[in-house]
Amino acid sequence: MPFLFNKNSIKEALEEHPEKARRLLIRQGHEKASEDLIREAKKQGVSYRILPADAFANKCGTARSNVCLERDDFDYTDQDTFLHSLDVADSPFLCAFDGVQDPQNLGNIVRSAACLEARALIFPKDRSCVINETVANVSRGATEYIEAVRVTNLARYLNSLKELGIFCYGLDERGTTSLWEADLKGPVCLVFGGEEGLRRLTKETCDVLVRIPTNPSFPSLNVATSFALAACEVRKQRSKF
Amino acid sequence: MPFLFNKNSIKEALEEHPEKARRLLIRQGHEKASEDLIREAKKQGVSYRILPADAFANKCGTARSNVCLERDDFDYTDQDTFLHSLDVADSPFLCAFDGVQDPQNLGNIVRSAACLEARALIFPKDRSCVINETVANVSRGATEYIEAVRVTNLARYLNSLKELGIFCYGLDERGTTSLWEADLKGPVCLVFGGEEGLRRLTKETCDVLVRIPTNPSFPSLNVATSFALAACEVRKQRSKF
Repeated sequence: MPFLFNKNSIKEALEEHPEKARRLLIRQGHEKASEDLIREAKKQGVSYRILPADAFANKCGTARSNVCLERDDFDYTDQDTFLHSLDVADSPFLCAFDGVQDPQNLGNIVRSAACLEARALIFPKDRSCVINETVANVSRGATEYIEAVRVTNLARYLNSLKELGIFCYGLDERGTTSLWEADLKGPVCLVFGGEEGLRRLTKETCDVLVRIPTNPSFPSLNVATSFALAACEVRKQRSKF
Repeated sequence: MPFLFNKNSIKEALEEHPEKARRLLIRQGHEKASEDLIREAKKQGVSYRILPADAFANKCGTARSNVCLERDDFDYTDQDTFLHSLDVADSPFLCAFDGVQDPQNLGNIVRSAACLEARALIFPKDRSCVINETVANVSRGATEYIEAVRVTNLARYLNSLKELGIFCYGLDERGTTSLWEADLKGPVCLVFGGEEGLRRLTKETCDVLVRIPTNPSFPSLNVATSFALAACEVRKQRSKF
């Protein structure tokens, strides 16, 4: 995630993790419009430079914006470190994604996860989009607020979570129980398929399959939407509203 | 919306509105992979052609797919016709969008609207993305299931809805009431801002401003996500689950 272009993303990155910001670049003639970002960079001790249009375009690629933050890659939490950090007594709310490949979807998921306060997002190392600059920009800076774990084998990792006492609900159109009837107050991990649904092994590893009841003639929600609806339900059951 | 490329979108378009489909085009060598679509086209009396790769690319533009449906543009409902068609006794659930400009967002909104059964979507004629082929493809064919109205002046149209007895809730981060406390069982119109929130006049026209309670450190949900959460709440309150 070396370059952020979205102003909100840059703002969040400077405020939340200035130690990971390398340099703020501004296209000449756009200093005024970026003065709040320059002020924040100064405050956080992040260097900044005004570049002529040509140099800015060379440095930042196709000019989608007039301001750009060079930044370190996203830091994933190590899968074992994460397991050891979990305290089941705190009823953690985790989410796992079995192969989300579209960065637009992942960006939306990350944004909703920050808004609705999921404890962490879990992704398999293969068949998954990584948290790159598109994701960071689509998320409007929410990548600064979330914890994410990449795991070697998702089914095995879900089994480790279950051994800790975390209940795994798989979201599936053919689930037998409505999500609204599921008890989401305890330690839970909600497991979502990618754009193509849950893989067989993942499905079999879940404790129960639940569904979000929709129009039977057109049942198929987008994965980022399913995630937001489910995360919101968790939040409601925990009376965070 | 002359070209659909997404297989689900083509399938829905052939099944739901064959009278609007002009011709199904298949890139040579991909007849086998498209045989279900060819079968549906035959059944619905829609003509189809297998084209050599070059001709397919010329006809359909950059080849994002191996199959393409030429189709009529989306039909919006006339704003006066729509007003007259409303029966308040049926407690219609309407949604208005004050300037959604991103076709990804609009595609997601349309998809969720079909899944969660909003009665209709209302857009102002200016400052709004139209239902074009990107929207249809992102929606996975949900454009075949929804009714949409384009209005000359959104604030004035909301006033007409209010005169009919439809209560207008504006979704706003600074809303005083939580959406979960609002009564959504009667005839309602939920009003969403575009990527930049509600315009002043729209906000003033709404009966009440409601908010979706989120993480105070990162409150800003994507408009398509806010829509899905709100539409789902309407559905729940009406016990459609």
